[in-house]
Amino acid sequence: MSGQQGQASGPVSGPVSGPAPHAARGRHLLADFHGVAAALLGDAAALERELVEAARAAGARVLGAHFHHFGAGAGVTGVVMLSESHISIHSWPEHLYAALDIFMCGAARPELALRRLRAALAPASVRVHDVARG
Amino acid sequence: MSGQQGQASGPVSGPVSGPAPHAARGRHLLADFHGVAAALLGDAAALERELVEAARAAGARVLGAHFHHFGAGAGVTGVVMLSESHISIHSWPEHLYAALDIFMCGAARPELALRRLRAALAPASVRVHDVARG
Repeated sequence: MSGQQGQASGPVSGPVSGPAPHAARGRHLLADFHGVAAALLGDAAALERELVEAARAAGARVLGAHFHHFGAGAGVTGVVMLSESHISIHSWPEHLYAALDIFMCGAARPELALRRLRAALAPASVRVHDVARG
Repeated sequence: MSGQQGQASGPVSGPVSGPAPHAARGRHLLADFHGVAAALLGDAAALERELVEAARAAGARVLGAHFHHFGAGAGVTGVVMLSESHISIHSWPEHLYAALDIFMCGAARPELALRRLRAALAPASVRVHDVARG
């Protein structure tokens, strides 16, 4: 992407200078969802289902999911662990707010997970930080 | 912080305009650790211990820890779930690299967790993104 060289000429033996392609390189999307339905933000089972589906939509492989519900009327903390890193959610139904992060390396496409989560949670507004990792 | 009003006058009935103080406000530190000893980056039990200690150093309450080792010579994916959000690590021993994120809301102090993890993992270089959430 931004690291691509403009030159297409030269030997075909592959890159010979500069940093090697890095298997650890990844993208980390931090997404603040405001204006989400409180009932959904307090439903740990539904959120787990949505995060797992989002991981699959991104082409990631799910290792496991761990969700904790803080009690009636309260929010949820959940993480879906991936071969490609993780997706997490922390929700505050009382603020109609959820903090998500989607971190994926390799060929998985975190923006597809984000798109699916936006569709599923239907926030009134979203702010995203897109951070290159590695 | 940045949302504070400059006015101290007016009735003492509390805030009546502008955004209310937000319990969901937090800090999310994304830390890239380069030049970490490969043996440590492949030691799931040691990394779990360090992340739990880092959470405690920050004043956070640990809900659980979930670590996955990708096999001999390979890295680790791990998450410590907190009442205040989470700490995660993804490691690549072959690159002497670990991607950490430390997300805490409330009174916990993520910078203290980061300080402890720097001391424990002794990276040759560190890059940190500090993102306000909420």
